[in-house]
Amino acid sequence: MYRITVLGAGNTGYTTAARLSLNGHTVTLGEIPAFAESISGIRNDKKILLQSPTGLEEVLINRVTSDIALAIKNADVILLTLPAYAHKSFANECAQYLTPGQIVILMPGTLGSLEFVRTLKAAGTTGITVGEVDTSPYVCRKTGVNKASIFGTVTHLGLGVFPAKDTDNVATIINSIFPGISKYTDVLECGLSAINPVIHPAGVIMNAGRIEYSDGEFYFYNEGVTTSVSIAIQAVDKERIQIGKALGYKLKPVNQAIHEAGLGPEGNLYHSIRGSKILTKLKAPGTMNNRWLTEDIPYGIATWSLLGTSLGIETPIMKSFIEIGSIVSGVNGWEKARNLNDLGINDLNVENLRTFLKTGEI
Amino acid sequence: MYRITVLGAGNTGYTTAARLSLNGHTVTLGEIPAFAESISGIRNDKKILLQSPTGLEEVLINRVTSDIALAIKNADVILLTLPAYAHKSFANECAQYLTPGQIVILMPGTLGSLEFVRTLKAAGTTGITVGEVDTSPYVCRKTGVNKASIFGTVTHLGLGVFPAKDTDNVATIINSIFPGISKYTDVLECGLSAINPVIHPAGVIMNAGRIEYSDGEFYFYNEGVTTSVSIAIQAVDKERIQIGKALGYKLKPVNQAIHEAGLGPEGNLYHSIRGSKILTKLKAPGTMNNRWLTEDIPYGIATWSLLGTSLGIETPIMKSFIEIGSIVSGVNGWEKARNLNDLGINDLNVENLRTFLKTGEI
Repeated sequence: MYRITVLGAGNTGYTTAARLSLNGHTVTLGEIPAFAESISGIRNDKKILLQSPTGLEEVLINRVTSDIALAIKNADVILLTLPAYAHKSFANECAQYLTPGQIVILMPGTLGSLEFVRTLKAAGTTGITVGEVDTSPYVCRKTGVNKASIFGTVTHLGLGVFPAKDTDNVATIINSIFPGISKYTDVLECGLSAINPVIHPAGVIMNAGRIEYSDGEFYFYNEGVTTSVSIAIQAVDKERIQIGKALGYKLKPVNQAIHEAGLGPEGNLYHSIRGSKILTKLKAPGTMNNRWLTEDIPYGIATWSLLGTSLGIETPIMKSFIEIGSIVSGVNGWEKARNLNDLGINDLNVENLRTFLKTGEI
Repeated sequence: MYRITVLGAGNTGYTTAARLSLNGHTVTLGEIPAFAESISGIRNDKKILLQSPTGLEEVLINRVTSDIALAIKNADVILLTLPAYAHKSFANECAQYLTPGQIVILMPGTLGSLEFVRTLKAAGTTGITVGEVDTSPYVCRKTGVNKASIFGTVTHLGLGVFPAKDTDNVATIINSIFPGISKYTDVLECGLSAINPVIHPAGVIMNAGRIEYSDGEFYFYNEGVTTSVSIAIQAVDKERIQIGKALGYKLKPVNQAIHEAGLGPEGNLYHSIRGSKILTKLKAPGTMNNRWLTEDIPYGIATWSLLGTSLGIETPIMKSFIEIGSIVSGVNGWEKARNLNDLGINDLNVENLRTFLKTGEI
């Protein structure tokens, strides 16, 4: 059992804090002061009502706090369950309190671990092992100020660690928290294996009319991921895989990733998504200004596309969804993109990049 | 009253043949032999049942034929109510039968008149005045082998004529057939003023999930052209207007065009479309492999985008819909595009182009 700090009190934060407490870990659920409102509903009694397929449980969280120093102190593992656009500010908030030997895992990361590392470095903080996983550990929703609902558990969370030479050690620990962990070569391979940016922008844009007409009141995966939407998602995926190939990775196609994560049956994308017993419970977002565009474009396909460009890989389909998504969400995906400079890898050739990812040194 | 030949027996062909017959014109409805099946339901009795807001009428068409020589002979005006991808083959079929002084109008053209002229020229046919209008004259559907339904009439059809020096003469004739004609500078300005390519690709792609989930069973304009879909359509429109500007045209924004065509109230695009009493009756196409993508991309926004590129105008949003539309419709918009060579204008600078459009000579 570990002392685990969960930072970020949204869908995944609430669910993870409750689930890991039930599993016997000593859990702190923390938020930075700016978002203290997110934990106001459980600050006093520290109880989360967790609805799961097996029933409703009241779960006591060991500590709930917006004091980051307190949240981080003595934690074995710090799990960041945050939107990607919050990674950098949390890195800045945490930098002075993190102590050598602590492990920080971004859930999911989508290359955010590289930005996190770069931010710690700028703050002079060293000796921290930073990792990221390829998707959220649970399919879940925060359903009230003290409630969360869990529809399914990802059975084979993929883990990337920086520096990659520490992967085995970190994976052993994370696997005892989230059983069934699979290991990526490094955080870059993991970040390129995120599922959300592959599915969300294409899916949302190609259901824009229905999302707005119905205020999101339909089952996104079951009703919205139709044949042509699957075709477009697979076209995004193909570009992603090409970028990976240029870096020497053999990335899993998204349908295989969905299946191996325990989210759906084996088969092509359409079959895997429509056959899912977990994803089918998720409704669509209600507007275009939502994280499936405002996060998964600038911190997902835009970052990938920029990486592709630096490698000479064309990404016309990603670019198309970035262009359209930018105008309909009101968030310019190119301007807000987590770019190669943010990742600290803009000046590296492929060889130096792989050395950096493995050793932490250039 | 005129001897009018309508070539093409689809939605617009059936409706136009019936409507103009009712108005007292002597109408021939023709098809090329390859599409003779389209007129099989009326070949014997030559009667079309026309449903309009004022009731059901049985209309006798003067002649129904798949003999193109017969169809064209003695016609004052030949109206082509065809998909854009049929323009060239009909030009080839008609070339040997057209006689000097005849007028051919593409309804709509989307720059097809330039391809038509080029095809006639290659066949050695001269003395034909070719024009095009900016949208179909009716909002209508062919509803059976001998039936058509008309929901509304476009009150201010825009007309472009090649060569443009003949515009006034031709407009006088066309205006007495379709009252309320407005004149464009030339066919290029008219072709850049088509409404369909502005609305359809963005509208269909951003409703892809619902179209496939419902087999098109929803009111496309009323339910599908929501806020963000309108935003995307306006972004396409803005690029189109920029292309026009580089050529010296002041193109009308699509919302103004819709209003002036009598299709909707004055106002912004969302207001104009949602307030329409005519467009609201139209359901969506049932699949992605339909003319709103397979015609309006390669013969609409792809042609415009190529023209834009030749003028140094960026069209990222058009390109985005071309890319996505190509993969989901199965028709590659770039490969199938009516390009500047097809239009016979690939080697012209802006000045020579305008001379050519005006005089018919380079």
